[in-house]
Amino acid sequence: MAGKEEVAFLGPIASYTHQAALSHFPQPHYTIVPQTTIADVFAAVQSGSVSQGVVPFENSSNGSVIFTLDLFADLAGRNPDILVCGEVYLGVHHCLLGRSKDAPEGQDAGTGRTTAENVSGSPSPAKSRGKPLRDLGHITKLYSHHQAWGQCNDFLTTYFKGVERIDVSSTSKAAEIVQQDDSGCSAAISSRMAGELNGLEFLAENLEDNEGNSTRFLVLRRRRDDGTARPDGSAGAADGEAETDDEHARYKTLVSFTVRHSEPGDLAGCLAVFQKFGLNLTSINSRPSNEATWHYIFFVEIMGRKRHDGSGAVNQALKGLDGVAQSWRWLGSWENALEA
Amino acid sequence: MAGKEEVAFLGPIASYTHQAALSHFPQPHYTIVPQTTIADVFAAVQSGSVSQGVVPFENSSNGSVIFTLDLFADLAGRNPDILVCGEVYLGVHHCLLGRSKDAPEGQDAGTGRTTAENVSGSPSPAKSRGKPLRDLGHITKLYSHHQAWGQCNDFLTTYFKGVERIDVSSTSKAAEIVQQDDSGCSAAISSRMAGELNGLEFLAENLEDNEGNSTRFLVLRRRRDDGTARPDGSAGAADGEAETDDEHARYKTLVSFTVRHSEPGDLAGCLAVFQKFGLNLTSINSRPSNEATWHYIFFVEIMGRKRHDGSGAVNQALKGLDGVAQSWRWLGSWENALEA
Repeated sequence: MAGKEEVAFLGPIASYTHQAALSHFPQPHYTIVPQTTIADVFAAVQSGSVSQGVVPFENSSNGSVIFTLDLFADLAGRNPDILVCGEVYLGVHHCLLGRSKDAPEGQDAGTGRTTAENVSGSPSPAKSRGKPLRDLGHITKLYSHHQAWGQCNDFLTTYFKGVERIDVSSTSKAAEIVQQDDSGCSAAISSRMAGELNGLEFLAENLEDNEGNSTRFLVLRRRRDDGTARPDGSAGAADGEAETDDEHARYKTLVSFTVRHSEPGDLAGCLAVFQKFGLNLTSINSRPSNEATWHYIFFVEIMGRKRHDGSGAVNQALKGLDGVAQSWRWLGSWENALEA
Repeated sequence: MAGKEEVAFLGPIASYTHQAALSHFPQPHYTIVPQTTIADVFAAVQSGSVSQGVVPFENSSNGSVIFTLDLFADLAGRNPDILVCGEVYLGVHHCLLGRSKDAPEGQDAGTGRTTAENVSGSPSPAKSRGKPLRDLGHITKLYSHHQAWGQCNDFLTTYFKGVERIDVSSTSKAAEIVQQDDSGCSAAISSRMAGELNGLEFLAENLEDNEGNSTRFLVLRRRRDDGTARPDGSAGAADGEAETDDEHARYKTLVSFTVRHSEPGDLAGCLAVFQKFGLNLTSINSRPSNEATWHYIFFVEIMGRKRHDGSGAVNQALKGLDGVAQSWRWLGSWENALEA
């Protein structure tokens, strides 16, 4: 690739994934390119049209991003060379973006749905962290991404019970739609960056139920001919040396596997393999494998990394899966970015 | 409770959960009562205002119903006495319900968006199982439940790329809304039962990607004073007798647990407990525990049942969790309803 490396992210501009990409790939060293869907980011990395990609993986309040898990499951065999090579944690603070009703900027209208009591059947406003900064009584339609609703439950129950919610492809798309709605009756749950980009007013801030609300993004890279995912050598150094506890704590590895449908005991057997080699499981997820009804593909994340020379506990565990799992796939090893 | 037993289900009338409830609780022996949300079903069972409840748990294409998992997680301590006492499997076949455009009933309009080629950028219609029975060109708005979109991906990508989708609380609610829309430009993805109830036309059938698309529902009951969930004695018989392989295959048990945040090795330790006592794990799920950021609550389903007399492998495993898990909860044992 001539010139700067290109990095794809789940767009559009001002999406939370865009912010994660900017923090991991500082400009002007990289050209970062928005994609419409998570599948498009995977496809761009798989095809080699970009060198890396950034996708959302899980939110601390709302759980896994199942679309991303399903793309890692890769049941259609479209992304055989995708590997995770990094992660980014980003604090997520949602704003309610729209237009205030007849109120000059900087002046609170002070009437209507600014307090929870005005909404029939709603409980104490104390439950919601986010408090309105403007009158909300004129808002009859909310736009956001599906993941955001689940993160702002308290605010929505307190101030917008029964108000129509429209799911759109991203929180930043929601802000764009609201910007184009001349009626002024719609609002978006989106980021500060999207509010500023679209010139919208901040009707409320910090809508998320949990103060620590954050999202983990994964950085994707295409598998090299040697099977490694080594951006700048970060997860590939130190081969040949003995493994240390520090090495286990410094890296993470993602593995998917399936088990024989007829042998439910195999699931425990696969998990036991990781324990046998002293690997700490940090998370487990399952998704329908669609191979057969009620058949699953499992995803485990473990501390430690697969070394290129075949040594170490992760390599031993992967070898151990051969005897128990119906199929398995190493989905990458990368440096742990979560501060203890 | 005087008279017939009351059973709550996730409504409204004609929802898939309604159909599951009808199949498990035949009328006129039970009075079945619709509830607005899954949380309402849990609350009705917890309070004792109904004797049992029916909630969706997982779909074969789309995975777990996270709202149900979060209610079992019970982080707010609202449902301490809820136990699972049964399950229902239901084949789910979605229909596109609406009004055909200017076409007398029984006659295909034959123009517009009946074939995928009319939709810009859409791929071969062969990908979609469901084929239009009527012209779809006038449909500009789709209503359904969030879970349904994921089950009808091929149909939606083929025939409705870019068309506005509105998430409503249930597929049957979607049919109600479309019934009341005089413009005729909206359509619902919902059940045959909802289509018939609302007098809507069937614009397309079998929209689901997978022919075997089905949903598993759980039957809930309040814990008795003796800690058991024994509707009609089904999961409570045979105490004192030795466990048999048949007993393990005939029953299922749901358990949730959390592990110490500082000891990621505890997750593998908890899972090893089930293996130690020869219990087959059939599924694993995790959800954010909200106790701390990136802390999870895990759900495992195992074959076998907790016996009331404290004997048997499930009781031994639960006892074993005491030493490893930060907390754990038995969420019920019930008869396996899945035909092998």
